[in-house]
Amino acid sequence: MSLSVLIETLGRQAREASLVLATADTSRKNAALLRLAALLVERTPAIMAANARDVAAAKAAGLAKPMVERLILDAKRIAAVAEGVREVAALPDPVGVELEHVTRPNGLDIRKISVPIGVVAIIYESRPNVTIDCAVLCLKSGNACILRGGKEAFETNTALAAVLSEALTETGLPPHAVQLVPTPDRAALLPLLKLDQYIHCIIPRGGEALIRFVTENATIPVIKHFKGVCTVYVDRDADPVLAEKIVLNAKTQRPGVCNAAENLFIHAAAAPALLPRLARALAAKKVELRADPEALAVLAAEPGLKLVPASGDDFSTEYLDLIMAVKIVPDLDAAIAAINHFGSAHSDAIVTRDEAAAKKFLAGVDSATVYWNASTRFTDGYEFGLGAEIGISTDRLHARGPMGLRELCTYKYVIVGTGQVRE
Amino acid sequence: MSLSVLIETLGRQAREASLVLATADTSRKNAALLRLAALLVERTPAIMAANARDVAAAKAAGLAKPMVERLILDAKRIAAVAEGVREVAALPDPVGVELEHVTRPNGLDIRKISVPIGVVAIIYESRPNVTIDCAVLCLKSGNACILRGGKEAFETNTALAAVLSEALTETGLPPHAVQLVPTPDRAALLPLLKLDQYIHCIIPRGGEALIRFVTENATIPVIKHFKGVCTVYVDRDADPVLAEKIVLNAKTQRPGVCNAAENLFIHAAAAPALLPRLARALAAKKVELRADPEALAVLAAEPGLKLVPASGDDFSTEYLDLIMAVKIVPDLDAAIAAINHFGSAHSDAIVTRDEAAAKKFLAGVDSATVYWNASTRFTDGYEFGLGAEIGISTDRLHARGPMGLRELCTYKYVIVGTGQVRE
Repeated sequence: MSLSVLIETLGRQAREASLVLATADTSRKNAALLRLAALLVERTPAIMAANARDVAAAKAAGLAKPMVERLILDAKRIAAVAEGVREVAALPDPVGVELEHVTRPNGLDIRKISVPIGVVAIIYESRPNVTIDCAVLCLKSGNACILRGGKEAFETNTALAAVLSEALTETGLPPHAVQLVPTPDRAALLPLLKLDQYIHCIIPRGGEALIRFVTENATIPVIKHFKGVCTVYVDRDADPVLAEKIVLNAKTQRPGVCNAAENLFIHAAAAPALLPRLARALAAKKVELRADPEALAVLAAEPGLKLVPASGDDFSTEYLDLIMAVKIVPDLDAAIAAINHFGSAHSDAIVTRDEAAAKKFLAGVDSATVYWNASTRFTDGYEFGLGAEIGISTDRLHARGPMGLRELCTYKYVIVGTGQVRE
Repeated sequence: MSLSVLIETLGRQAREASLVLATADTSRKNAALLRLAALLVERTPAIMAANARDVAAAKAAGLAKPMVERLILDAKRIAAVAEGVREVAALPDPVGVELEHVTRPNGLDIRKISVPIGVVAIIYESRPNVTIDCAVLCLKSGNACILRGGKEAFETNTALAAVLSEALTETGLPPHAVQLVPTPDRAALLPLLKLDQYIHCIIPRGGEALIRFVTENATIPVIKHFKGVCTVYVDRDADPVLAEKIVLNAKTQRPGVCNAAENLFIHAAAAPALLPRLARALAAKKVELRADPEALAVLAAEPGLKLVPASGDDFSTEYLDLIMAVKIVPDLDAAIAAINHFGSAHSDAIVTRDEAAAKKFLAGVDSATVYWNASTRFTDGYEFGLGAEIGISTDRLHARGPMGLRELCTYKYVIVGTGQVRE
């Protein structure tokens, strides 16, 4: 079978499965999830054996150690994945919720009802647990999915897909509701991105190059999970203790994730007293500071800092590392403008005691999530109470910010009449 | 200025304007709309003069008569457009609505608030009134817009854009909040579709070729307003009077629009008694029937019909004309499967007295709008009570079906803390 025929077959099968899944009972979907959780534990030896092949190949290919680390699925991690599946089973079904209801003057009864999107393709990179996490969120929300993982995890993903298929079949759901692209061949990606007759949404999760490739080539709507260039802005009237606590947490609590802060902006009036304190606290956590000329001047006399002059791109870079770009801004308006210019519209925070300043910031910063006196690190489906998340959308359409089960649904209008016609 | 620099400048200006517009007061936006309505009336002679140049050029180029007809903006139409602007001014502001509010166990106060999408590009074809209709919906919803109309209407659109700019400037809103691509050159379209650093959403409205081009080339999220291949399914237990009334209305009340029915499917048990009656009623309205072999057999003896055998594509064709494809289906399941296979997931209706059959149809037909005992012609923003519509989305993400002011908004999370950090 040629690659394009193979991909088209996957798409057609997914579409057919999606029409069955869209009207599947909650109890049946949950039964499949619970069976999956049990099977993941039962099949742990087979999954680990497949994973060992991936890990050996990755080491042989000289993959960097953190990349190899991400690949590993041991018994403990598999048990955690299974537990996550049970948690999704326990969440409310997002399908069939009445979102609105109106009776029009002509008597037409119009209900807006949540329904699955249909067929969702998820394109991701190394971590094999994403295979299960994404499949179960799609299944719970009634979407068929096509999964395209990284080639380094192909053996593990294949073993996980076999378990998924087994759970679906045993519980009477169509096995094509979850399909892994059955080849690691890179050439399979392009025809997948063009399969708009069968696939309704593509979610790419991964590095900038992957997301750029998907965006440029897909004819299917894409919900990007792109980078987070997040800023903490310390206002003129910030509480110093709060400022230090929030800046430290946003930068250092987990630097490798998209809601970690990359930029520290500080009001010129607050900088002389407060910036040295913040810089010392960051230095104690081994954070390198890339400072603009004004910030450099304030910090020049401070010993023990890892301090370098900021270059042009530093304020729009997602470091995912113990690096923070520091800028002194003349006022709140300049802070808002700089965040809207340099940031990625992901998560940005103001630290201030001034309510008027906070309100202006919250309204003026054009980001998915804006905070007043809290860490940017809270941008997360679990922290927002969504129960689970398939990722954090950096797009503005359909889903913005944490994307949970509800955001994996669209809606339809269900209209009941008594013979109404249009005049 | 090169074309790509010109387009990039438009985008940057739109983005800057959008940041102002996003926090503009309702009263200021409405003042701009009311001033626009007044100016449209005042400037009617200039608009008509520009329009006369477009119409003369179209006639000289041998444009088909219905196309020329669509181009014409006379004083009466301009007054109607101005009245439409006043109606939009009277609608509630969709921005700043609190969609959700939760206080998390850690005390974080999380509000989900409606905000404008940002910069919206609208790409459309001949009717120049679309220029005003789309601009005012974007303005009311706080979005900056870039308008790209058809080249046949370029002079008229330029005159209308001048009036828009005047109204914005007079009322203190950024004139770049509404910009027309200032050249009819086709080559301007491609760079516009790639301007993802400034434009957040593209809405193409027009023929299949235009929409296909946009979908294949845009790196910006697209909300398609594509074709409607709508079906009326007459069930075994349909009321014959209702069936005739609904089929006739769905097909003939206004055949040239996307929510008109193109297909008539009928249950095999109902066909012998009911199909000849429906066919006669359609024939009386000059509708040509393209029938599958079973329907042909039922109708063969009927005099006075415009009856031809259906070909392969007839059940997935948007005729926009007095043509209807007719198919006999063995049962309800087959009807649902045929609609999901041949239709465009726009609007589909069942006519039946059987509630169980209706419920199965409403759940199983995977379309944006599904009707029980009513005409498909009601799929429309005004009929749904949305107040206005920018079009009817045939996509599933963000907006499905009629797209009103609310669907021109996205949301942001506004989070207020007291120093919370993530552990």
